[in-house]
Amino acid sequence: MSPSNAAQSFRAIDAIRKKRDGLELTPAQIEALVDAYTKGDVPDYQVSAWLMAVVLRGMTRPETAALTDAMLHSGEVLDLSSLTKRKVDKHSTGGVGDKTSLVLTPLVAASGVAVPMISGRGLGHTGGTLDKLEAIPGFNVNLPVAEFRRVLEKCGCAMIGQTAEIAPADRKLYALRDVTATVESPFLICASIMSKKLAEGIDALLLDVKTGSGAFMKSQQDAMFLAELMVETGERMGKQVVALITDMDQPLGNMIGNALEVVEVIEILQGKGPEDLRELCLHLAGWMLRLGNVSKTVAEGKQVSADLISSGKALEKFRQLIELQGGDPSVIDSPQKLPQATQTLKITSTDAGYVNSMQCEQIGTAAVVLGGGRERKEDSIDPAVGIVLHKKVGDQVETGEPLATIYFNTQARAERARQLIVQSYEIIDEPPTKKRPLIHQAIGKAAEKD
Amino acid sequence: MSPSNAAQSFRAIDAIRKKRDGLELTPAQIEALVDAYTKGDVPDYQVSAWLMAVVLRGMTRPETAALTDAMLHSGEVLDLSSLTKRKVDKHSTGGVGDKTSLVLTPLVAASGVAVPMISGRGLGHTGGTLDKLEAIPGFNVNLPVAEFRRVLEKCGCAMIGQTAEIAPADRKLYALRDVTATVESPFLICASIMSKKLAEGIDALLLDVKTGSGAFMKSQQDAMFLAELMVETGERMGKQVVALITDMDQPLGNMIGNALEVVEVIEILQGKGPEDLRELCLHLAGWMLRLGNVSKTVAEGKQVSADLISSGKALEKFRQLIELQGGDPSVIDSPQKLPQATQTLKITSTDAGYVNSMQCEQIGTAAVVLGGGRERKEDSIDPAVGIVLHKKVGDQVETGEPLATIYFNTQARAERARQLIVQSYEIIDEPPTKKRPLIHQAIGKAAEKD
Repeated sequence: MSPSNAAQSFRAIDAIRKKRDGLELTPAQIEALVDAYTKGDVPDYQVSAWLMAVVLRGMTRPETAALTDAMLHSGEVLDLSSLTKRKVDKHSTGGVGDKTSLVLTPLVAASGVAVPMISGRGLGHTGGTLDKLEAIPGFNVNLPVAEFRRVLEKCGCAMIGQTAEIAPADRKLYALRDVTATVESPFLICASIMSKKLAEGIDALLLDVKTGSGAFMKSQQDAMFLAELMVETGERMGKQVVALITDMDQPLGNMIGNALEVVEVIEILQGKGPEDLRELCLHLAGWMLRLGNVSKTVAEGKQVSADLISSGKALEKFRQLIELQGGDPSVIDSPQKLPQATQTLKITSTDAGYVNSMQCEQIGTAAVVLGGGRERKEDSIDPAVGIVLHKKVGDQVETGEPLATIYFNTQARAERARQLIVQSYEIIDEPPTKKRPLIHQAIGKAAEKD
Repeated sequence: MSPSNAAQSFRAIDAIRKKRDGLELTPAQIEALVDAYTKGDVPDYQVSAWLMAVVLRGMTRPETAALTDAMLHSGEVLDLSSLTKRKVDKHSTGGVGDKTSLVLTPLVAASGVAVPMISGRGLGHTGGTLDKLEAIPGFNVNLPVAEFRRVLEKCGCAMIGQTAEIAPADRKLYALRDVTATVESPFLICASIMSKKLAEGIDALLLDVKTGSGAFMKSQQDAMFLAELMVETGERMGKQVVALITDMDQPLGNMIGNALEVVEVIEILQGKGPEDLRELCLHLAGWMLRLGNVSKTVAEGKQVSADLISSGKALEKFRQLIELQGGDPSVIDSPQKLPQATQTLKITSTDAGYVNSMQCEQIGTAAVVLGGGRERKEDSIDPAVGIVLHKKVGDQVETGEPLATIYFNTQARAERARQLIVQSYEIIDEPPTKKRPLIHQAIGKAAEKD
């Protein structure tokens, strides 16, 4: 409210008023707002009022594209054109036990498609790729751009966190949204994700939009809306984008928690591991290979990916990636070198019957409560803790049979987590009749051709 | 976003999220938010997001009452119980040429009802009571509370600006609303007005809610909504409150501008002046006398008020008030001692016919443009400038006859004002058939009895 900002504030208030009244901002107005905010010329309190107006009034497609574009160009856009390989990335909207990025990055890179992946931390009840990678002793996710490029050139993939150079407007806006209850807007989510992904210098992008009780978009309708918004925004900017709506009504795979998820990733890359996780990884890889022009169809891409796993090439690529980013690759052969929890607790069933459903968000919250995620921004993470599920939807259960095992370091946390997990299982007398598909739908121009 | 605010921010974000989702906050939540904001424990950027959610989602009656109550108790509530007289104030939602407060305060005080008036500055295209009073040389509107009380005890009325002690939450919230496009909410307007008025230690309040092209509430429906909200909120807090919906589709009286309006106030108190202004003043005074238990009916109150004018007692009270607040009372007999503009410009009609309507907000803006109001917060005011209207709605006009005279000190400003005034007059061939009433409606429990 200082007079020195009078000129800038005047423009900002026009943008706020317009959005408040449900009118459309011009691309120039959106660009000016983002630009001024990034530079510190417009204060937080004006932008938060505008963000709330966006949450409640929505945005048009051109506004969403303009916001994405302004955020994208608030920082550096990587030029990876010196890398002749086709560059494809994948982004998931987040879930519980979703460790697919750790499988896909080396797997797809092993096929000859470059994967320049910039990932995030755990958010709310969901895990984060960076937190999982950091469970590997020595693994450095904070590479400067030059080093990121070197690793990418050397092994065809690299996995880092958002750097200061990439989409600074998104970092600033995200921090503000987080404390002003303005996270939950498909338009703002779209701009945040797409601005970062488009700054990576990729040719194509696969979006994994989760739906179900463990996803941010609980309903398939909301997931579809966000997926279409992101695909359209990416296509407007000349990128090939496909979104898959995939299921997150129960955790993916059996292991939840940072080190535990790395164990399950290694199992998948060894041709083992749980069926649902393997199937989703192969399907996503199939799509990435198709988008990377290595395969003509998704089915062919899946087959190539399965072969890369059985030949051990995908696992070797993971070993190379860990080594290049400073991690200890011996964890692949000796997973016990990953951080280990000091105690375990078995949760047994008090009923006999069949698992009808799991409250997936609660299980994610249980992992956070154990210390596997952050309850507050400033919390540190315990990579060793987590949950191993022994029963999932459709499974038969006897009374006294274990449902899950908790890996923990603090008794009080284990007790809170136990309650959440017990409550999350719904057990009924008959086997459930309907099974939710793992992959609900594919969206995007490229998807129409398959 | 500093971690030290984590505990407080957490509560604030719950309030934001709830309002964003259209849910009702508890009185305790609203009180906590206002309290924490006033103390500086919740940052502007969270409150502005909450304010925007309120603008777009609205508030329930209990929420509005809780907000008013929290703002009222954010500061000092005057205890005027030592003053045995009944204390009645009036508040107008603002208009063009609305100088009724300057007439009513001495007029009603002359009847034996105490009028402890705390007023505001001009806002947007509307004038402000404080700015008008300050046109009187020496008049001090910044009295400390003790001095306010002394003047009130001595002459039965006093007119000051909001002090630091009264409703500090409102001052802080208002400044934030002003720069975040969150002024236009009847719920926030109600809480802002009522918290200040209820802090005055009054027994009853008359609200003059303006409607028409020169009011903030352009439609009668919006004016009614705000009026009912304010009356209900005041009645919930045990005060007698009546709201009159009165017309602001053309300026009130003939003079607009701070010193010019003081001249017109003196004329009215001398039993002269324009018919519409006199009629509205007598009507409002009639109501204040009834609320002050000096008269049994509004009609009786009007008659008493008319007598107080013709006997010269109201004018003598005004003289006493000016003197007690440090002003030069000789302006009453020698209005030329008020600030005088250096130049005048007559606007003549290019058409013959009848004035069908006037764009009242444009005329208010013309007065601001001349320097009579503030285009920016930090602008100073020129008390001498303004507009005198020679023709109003229903009047017959000949080609070349003057419509208005501009009093100005800067040529360029006069030219901008002239254009606005010329455009604001709509002249038609036949006399307009419909005449808008000066007083549309009375609202409130006390109004039902009259």
